[in-house]
Amino acid sequence: MRGKFIVVEGLEGAGKSSVIGLIVKALTDAGMRVEQTREPGGTPMAEAIRECVKHDWDETVSEETELLLMYAARVQLLTNKIYPSLNAGAWVVGDRHDLSSQAYQGGGRGVSEKTMTAISDIALNGFKPDLTLYLDVDPAVGLERARGRGELDRIEQAGLGFFERTRARYLSLAENDESIIVVNAMQPMEQVHQDVISIIANYVSQHIDEGSESHKTDQGNN
Amino acid sequence: MRGKFIVVEGLEGAGKSSVIGLIVKALTDAGMRVEQTREPGGTPMAEAIRECVKHDWDETVSEETELLLMYAARVQLLTNKIYPSLNAGAWVVGDRHDLSSQAYQGGGRGVSEKTMTAISDIALNGFKPDLTLYLDVDPAVGLERARGRGELDRIEQAGLGFFERTRARYLSLAENDESIIVVNAMQPMEQVHQDVISIIANYVSQHIDEGSESHKTDQGNN
Repeated sequence: MRGKFIVVEGLEGAGKSSVIGLIVKALTDAGMRVEQTREPGGTPMAEAIRECVKHDWDETVSEETELLLMYAARVQLLTNKIYPSLNAGAWVVGDRHDLSSQAYQGGGRGVSEKTMTAISDIALNGFKPDLTLYLDVDPAVGLERARGRGELDRIEQAGLGFFERTRARYLSLAENDESIIVVNAMQPMEQVHQDVISIIANYVSQHIDEGSESHKTDQGNN
Repeated sequence: MRGKFIVVEGLEGAGKSSVIGLIVKALTDAGMRVEQTREPGGTPMAEAIRECVKHDWDETVSEETELLLMYAARVQLLTNKIYPSLNAGAWVVGDRHDLSSQAYQGGGRGVSEKTMTAISDIALNGFKPDLTLYLDVDPAVGLERARGRGELDRIEQAGLGFFERTRARYLSLAENDESIIVVNAMQPMEQVHQDVISIIANYVSQHIDEGSESHKTDQGNN
């Protein structure tokens, strides 16, 4: 049976790393084979593209260049890691995916919807994650946490307004897509983790049933 | 007055480098300020992207990844070098531009016309060179010359069929665009150079007239 692709999204400092750890453990405990990815990156070539896009260049980085590099890295990861893992039955847990481009480049940088749709069609051909957890945090809070961890990269150095537009886009995209669940990441960490564990447990129980109980469901419909 | 963008195109071993040298000399002798570019590359970030796309990776490089990287590098070069140079009145001589992607990725790799058009719209927003010289050479001849210069990169290692499709696309695009001039690069080098010098001299005389004699032309029309 094909695996599922679960993505964790959010602004810098939203707490993605510890949530990803929790999800990987929960899925492993439930008996799944689990692969982890991060974007941009996740294959040697995609990691080299990540270096390019994150580097603090001594020249203007055009919005379109940034966007094209993000999608170049994404296609490499999809082709060489995400698709093969899912097809081999593994569940893949991703640190960011397409929703990040939609939010950061589309919302934050203001790249047009027409451009976002065109490039997403070229690169993804309709593919999307099975489940996305968006960890919602006020940018001021998130950036304060991220700064505590050390130096910020080129993209993380953008102003607060950029992150407010990014957050607004995350929230409006989540509102229109039932595969995206918003988690309030401004709660105490234990509550955030409890919410995440319950979402994942619920998702797993539904989708393990999906495979093994389809016959029973058919009978129930008769 | 805005400068002109002249591009030299062709398969590996077509003789682009020496033709570019000729053009730069002819324009400089005619009193122009001349800038040179190469693609992919031409700015520090675009050169880093060039490294990514040319490297012989130990993983499959997806057609879309290659395409997205080529355009990422192109946008950086346009934004930070080609546009500012042209606006400052310089003439820019380019070693490859968009026609290479149309021919290599569109023709050689078989990326769909829909995808080629979509990405070109995103990256170029209608911009195109003022004049392109396509140096036409049989791929078998060109590759033999290129091999003589040393090791071939990842793209240059593709089979002969790839280069035959690329050449066919170059020729069909040239047929439908009067700003692209086909130069027979299988002639003896002296004849090729004579052809190039005559094309450039003709172009320069037309476009220097364009600026200084517009008033005279207006009178002629009355």
